[in-house]
Amino acid sequence: LPNSVEFDWLDVVLVDVRNPLNIGAAARAMSNLGFARLRLVNPYEIAFRDARSAVGAAETLARAEVYKTVAEAVADSSLVVGTTAVRHRDLQHDLVPVTKGADSIRSRLATGEKCALLFGSEKFGLSNEDMSHCHWLMHIPTREDHCSMNLGQAVAICLYELARDTELPIEPREGSPALSADIERITDTLLEALRASEYPKLNTSKSFHAAVRRVIRRLRMQKGDAELLLGMLRQIIWKLNKSKDKDGETSAAG
Amino acid sequence: LPNSVEFDWLDVVLVDVRNPLNIGAAARAMSNLGFARLRLVNPYEIAFRDARSAVGAAETLARAEVYKTVAEAVADSSLVVGTTAVRHRDLQHDLVPVTKGADSIRSRLATGEKCALLFGSEKFGLSNEDMSHCHWLMHIPTREDHCSMNLGQAVAICLYELARDTELPIEPREGSPALSADIERITDTLLEALRASEYPKLNTSKSFHAAVRRVIRRLRMQKGDAELLLGMLRQIIWKLNKSKDKDGETSAAG
Repeated sequence: LPNSVEFDWLDVVLVDVRNPLNIGAAARAMSNLGFARLRLVNPYEIAFRDARSAVGAAETLARAEVYKTVAEAVADSSLVVGTTAVRHRDLQHDLVPVTKGADSIRSRLATGEKCALLFGSEKFGLSNEDMSHCHWLMHIPTREDHCSMNLGQAVAICLYELARDTELPIEPREGSPALSADIERITDTLLEALRASEYPKLNTSKSFHAAVRRVIRRLRMQKGDAELLLGMLRQIIWKLNKSKDKDGETSAAG
Repeated sequence: LPNSVEFDWLDVVLVDVRNPLNIGAAARAMSNLGFARLRLVNPYEIAFRDARSAVGAAETLARAEVYKTVAEAVADSSLVVGTTAVRHRDLQHDLVPVTKGADSIRSRLATGEKCALLFGSEKFGLSNEDMSHCHWLMHIPTREDHCSMNLGQAVAICLYELARDTELPIEPREGSPALSADIERITDTLLEALRASEYPKLNTSKSFHAAVRRVIRRLRMQKGDAELLLGMLRQIIWKLNKSKDKDGETSAAG
């Protein structure tokens, strides 16, 4: 294994994983293949740190961080990639095979960007809501009629592919990309603006929220642009709220 | 996954595996990645077919074949490859990373040769005796200080690497290679000849047997040559035994 300091910039994020054995298996593969940063979103059993099968992965488990939401777990990443076995479902994202996806992730890591790689629960995988936090998705090529992989094995294969060939040319870096936290702030601010504007589709709330997040992510914003846009939105909201208050005053006065 | 009829020529052979969950995990990865032929040597629990974790792998488990010895399990293969995490132990074999090893296996499979890929027990891996049945060994590149992988994950990564890129150029085939059964027959016959010759090192029996097997394998014999050599050895043995009988007669008569 090459000296792979760049793998310190990758978070492996397990979302809603139910079986501590699978968390242990993921941690063990991480330790084998040189990835140290494990994050858990809403793990079913809090006793995951004792996961039995985690031979040699005690350190990885001990340092694992627990989050309540995907948004918090990926807040400091500028690239968020989801994994999925599904290819038929009406995916709203680009879906690439792991070979190609790993190339992209590696290039980003090599420029010092922080990336998150998401795995969903054993039974359901990542939800549409989870996926809306992702820039794109990747899958392991499997047989059509048996595509659902064991979680520990899927993690092992994805990390193996990432560590497989670290001598790729590094893609030039174009400015500093926005972090997930920036994207989330913009999404929330835009939604607030839409609410304040009585945007008609807002009542389908949760899926609409995810749709907006996807739109924002697809823009692949630079950090400076994100701040500019956020300022614009805040200004709009201020104005909307002010007009509302004025209306209120007007009717109260009227 | 490409239409991979050549994977029908690969046996995944698990030797002395103790945990049915690991057998199940291996079977599941096989099913995911398009490999159907599972062989078990001396499985600890005969109840392996019920292995709990084997989601979607029931068919693979049901068709698995059980053998008492490695020799029997690889008898019909012309290429036998072992897997190992160990790189320090005094290995008697060539050891290549899985990327390179998978290329070689794929080339052989593509010409219609039957290959076997061996995995050892969870605790000890393949023994020197097991390895003596192998032409060469391969390993998954891991961290030096945590190289021991979970069995199910190691199987998944090796099969993933085999299925990863099936568009490699096919190596030209040079004659028909000897099967493992031929190698074994020659090894046994040579040992018989050595015994009959009162070869001095024979008393270190088991490790010596393995050493001889390795020597024979390294020759990478063609089938016709193997038959020729076997005939020579048999002739030698016949002669040795005949002389012994004659000596006996002589002393009995004298």
